[in-house]
Amino acid sequence: MAADIRITALSWAPPQFQGQVRDLAVRWALEEAGLPYEIELLDDAARKTAGYCQRQPFGQVPAYAEGDVELFESGAIVLHIAEKAAVPGNSALLPADPRSRARAKAWLFAALNSLDVDITALCDIDHWAPDEPWGRARRPELEQMVRARLDILAAQFESRQYLAGEFSAADIMTIMVLRALRHTTLISDHPVLRGYRDRCEARPAFQRSLAAQLRGYARHASEST
Amino acid sequence: MAADIRITALSWAPPQFQGQVRDLAVRWALEEAGLPYEIELLDDAARKTAGYCQRQPFGQVPAYAEGDVELFESGAIVLHIAEKAAVPGNSALLPADPRSRARAKAWLFAALNSLDVDITALCDIDHWAPDEPWGRARRPELEQMVRARLDILAAQFESRQYLAGEFSAADIMTIMVLRALRHTTLISDHPVLRGYRDRCEARPAFQRSLAAQLRGYARHASEST
Repeated sequence: MAADIRITALSWAPPQFQGQVRDLAVRWALEEAGLPYEIELLDDAARKTAGYCQRQPFGQVPAYAEGDVELFESGAIVLHIAEKAAVPGNSALLPADPRSRARAKAWLFAALNSLDVDITALCDIDHWAPDEPWGRARRPELEQMVRARLDILAAQFESRQYLAGEFSAADIMTIMVLRALRHTTLISDHPVLRGYRDRCEARPAFQRSLAAQLRGYARHASEST
Repeated sequence: MAADIRITALSWAPPQFQGQVRDLAVRWALEEAGLPYEIELLDDAARKTAGYCQRQPFGQVPAYAEGDVELFESGAIVLHIAEKAAVPGNSALLPADPRSRARAKAWLFAALNSLDVDITALCDIDHWAPDEPWGRARRPELEQMVRARLDILAAQFESRQYLAGEFSAADIMTIMVLRALRHTTLISDHPVLRGYRDRCEARPAFQRSLAAQLRGYARHASEST
């Protein structure tokens, strides 16, 4: 039986971005929720067509289709999956308690707007302008800004294992954003955040999602040589 | 009767940020939805207390309280208000049609993660480093990146007046993000986006929200002198 849910992913990504492309967050959410899905792989030409940009205006992945309903933006998709899965008795991605559920949603947004903005600026320098004078001049202050945000994130784990108490969609988006820092030691040198990352990434649903994303890239690479 | 909903705002902001602080988005959503609310004004000392950081970990505004439920992140709050208001017969902030509703949610996230990241980087230069060599070196490329994103946004209005067809929460967050560019001509020189901005900002609910935010700052300034 064909899965009702279909998402797009890249057929290949440069090694430094493998394991960071954001279809990973959506795969992970679907694996945690136990929902079947199909992957549609796109190369660079396919994601720039007018037809695909009707589905994802920025020509990026993932895009999501579920019957008649289409979504883009990994945050919107992960939240949609979390709410779809949150039937009575299933709190795989959103806590049942209203206060904790509100906290999960707030942190899902915080990952994307209060953490990712500075992290993206830092990573843009490291990937695209590491040797340019402006990048070298800008980087120290930006790293301090990222460290300050990471300390605020770490403070959340003084009294809890996950952002909303139990594991939730907020942790998926936060780990997705933090994975952009893998080329630095900002997480691995931070005991609290390293522990949080390791707890989340040890989950079988994450491991399956990451393996599937990397397997797609490897297959494409072997077929292209 | 006291309003059930309470949000925080700043008692004062520097002139260049007045009309841009994000409690504006939440006030606007509440005004569109017709929900009563109270404002709690915070000065810089109050928003840095440990007590407030329990409510808003980054020490920013707005924070939202509704009875027992607390939220932070303007995107999460606006989405919560939109869903709270979306009872049958009220589509003030979310279209009733599932396809259009999905589009509204996707664009709400896109405003915060696909538009705001580059816009914030550009504005950070303009406000904090306009004369620094790194800022001058970086700015042209960043402006091109912002222009490319704005063109993708503008393309959405070829066949519709608002992002989800009818006015929705997505327009509130998008206008909120675009307002950070008011010190530039990037919107005012772009006929499609200027028209979109003017349509949204002409709404009585927006005008009431903006006037109320500015009135708070003016009162604080007159009491401080």
